[in-house]
Amino acid sequence: MKLATLKNGARDGKLVVVSRDLTRFTDASFLAQTLQAALDDWQRIAPHLATLAESLETGSVPSSRFHEHDAHSPLPRAYQWADGSAYLNHVELVRKSRGSEMPANVETDPLMYQGGSDAFLAPRDPILLADEAWGADVEGEVAVIVDDVPMGATAKQARGAIRLVMLVNDVSLRGLAAAELAKGFGFFQSKPSSAFSPVAVTPDELGDAWDGAKLALPLHVDLNGKPLGRANAGEMHFDFGQLVAHAARTRPLAAGTVVGSGTVSNKLDGGHGKPVSAGGAGYSCLAELRMVEALESGGKAKTPLLRFGDTVRIEMKDAGGHSIFGAIEQTVEKYER
Amino acid sequence: MKLATLKNGARDGKLVVVSRDLTRFTDASFLAQTLQAALDDWQRIAPHLATLAESLETGSVPSSRFHEHDAHSPLPRAYQWADGSAYLNHVELVRKSRGSEMPANVETDPLMYQGGSDAFLAPRDPILLADEAWGADVEGEVAVIVDDVPMGATAKQARGAIRLVMLVNDVSLRGLAAAELAKGFGFFQSKPSSAFSPVAVTPDELGDAWDGAKLALPLHVDLNGKPLGRANAGEMHFDFGQLVAHAARTRPLAAGTVVGSGTVSNKLDGGHGKPVSAGGAGYSCLAELRMVEALESGGKAKTPLLRFGDTVRIEMKDAGGHSIFGAIEQTVEKYER
Repeated sequence: MKLATLKNGARDGKLVVVSRDLTRFTDASFLAQTLQAALDDWQRIAPHLATLAESLETGSVPSSRFHEHDAHSPLPRAYQWADGSAYLNHVELVRKSRGSEMPANVETDPLMYQGGSDAFLAPRDPILLADEAWGADVEGEVAVIVDDVPMGATAKQARGAIRLVMLVNDVSLRGLAAAELAKGFGFFQSKPSSAFSPVAVTPDELGDAWDGAKLALPLHVDLNGKPLGRANAGEMHFDFGQLVAHAARTRPLAAGTVVGSGTVSNKLDGGHGKPVSAGGAGYSCLAELRMVEALESGGKAKTPLLRFGDTVRIEMKDAGGHSIFGAIEQTVEKYER
Repeated sequence: MKLATLKNGARDGKLVVVSRDLTRFTDASFLAQTLQAALDDWQRIAPHLATLAESLETGSVPSSRFHEHDAHSPLPRAYQWADGSAYLNHVELVRKSRGSEMPANVETDPLMYQGGSDAFLAPRDPILLADEAWGADVEGEVAVIVDDVPMGATAKQARGAIRLVMLVNDVSLRGLAAAELAKGFGFFQSKPSSAFSPVAVTPDELGDAWDGAKLALPLHVDLNGKPLGRANAGEMHFDFGQLVAHAARTRPLAAGTVVGSGTVSNKLDGGHGKPVSAGGAGYSCLAELRMVEALESGGKAKTPLLRFGDTVRIEMKDAGGHSIFGAIEQTVEKYER
């Protein structure tokens, strides 16, 4: 089934079930007012949501037109957002761009940072910056929402706790990241609010593209209407089972915890890949493209980071070319207090 | 007023008002089911909670005996936990113990990390470790819960958004911290669930000890019944207004966001202070004491990090010697799956 949260003025919005083709929705708030409420009691509520979803497909319940721009992030606020970095091509290129070393055990010990989860952006909300020099970047990712996960869960157990899958724009402020990271306490100010896709789906909606812990489809990332990235999200070095288990090593995770894949990125013939314009799979963030441009020219990147007025779009399509999660589409705007 | 959350089997517990002397409580769930619900609509609900608190003091509402061990953390789960490090003596000693440099702008740019907030410990819950070698440590701190804070709020505006004050044990795993920090993404696995005091209080309960952004009282931290720390929490290098404004620089903060002070620590005559046993104000974490021991002996620390069976207690008393927030008291136990 596909679930969304419609903006209704309340902090957590209203839970709805969306049709597979994303054209219709039906109110699900009589089963659970919010998505978090459904996740808090998933074993009991999910079967009823699934029944409602089937009724929506057969047209046997009242429904209305689904507009992606009416949707909030599936969880408008969450109790946890932990973002991995499972595509090593991304890690290599971004570290190179910051002039920092690769971590010693990067192939065996996942990178993960704790993100802010109190105020996610809706998928069509602007990215507000007080200063263009903050150097905003898009980061296209896949994320899962898990059920309760006990401390010390194995990767296999963690896989079994995955309830929903969605897309993320993990907005990053490259202009602030190096100074923040140098302080040693993580990204803090350089990771403002993230945005998630209009729809979160249960893994069974993903068919063969989902192997239980990885989603093997290209992630479409566009900048101002032109393709920036078409990297395959299936090429994770650590799968979601491993990432969730990593997050749960020293503490339990509560239902509704969101775990991200990190920026989707593909190697090509052992190298860092090629821009879409050069026939490659491209990149899901500008920092990677800029680093590749700098490496290839032996000089400076030619593509700038995001500027006021720029629009980024993140979407994923199934084998038939249909949007699975709806699109994140955000314009960068000047923040005025 | 003083607010607490009683364990009732639900994830967010039940909101109650507690008497000033911490002996009685009255149910407040008819006003707001949970503390987060009260914070979500504070302007409307707080006056009613205040009225109820006055009725409790005068004995004009039904009340029951308040037992601190029945309390959960005031927010059993929160949408954000952002912990500063406002006591530079702590920063200096802990960095020294890890052999890492002081950040360049440490006196003008606050340190802050994003913590996990999905599964806080209750104030009397055990600290569960799968492995004693994780090197658990207590970190005694003060924390505030804020209302909505817009992006770019000034320190003065941020002060005005402080709704509640409480104590924290920001449990830290010293055995894992250095390796985690070396990866560059923050503490992640080395900061498991934190515990908060049984009671959160509105600033007006703090009298002259609260100047609007700092709480000038000694924090009592005990290890196995003996005093470890009596450091004054008022000696912050950055006050809570500055810490909250720092957190809100690039994004808004949602109501219910918890912001911590960092481990309370006092300098003495320009030096790193002295253990309680040597007549000093002591330390609110073991890492500081251990570093001071190592420096003084020119060798190794003699006090070990927390071991299975150790008990830590954190409490703060008003000028009259009465506990303000109740006590955090936790025993370290072996986690068995």
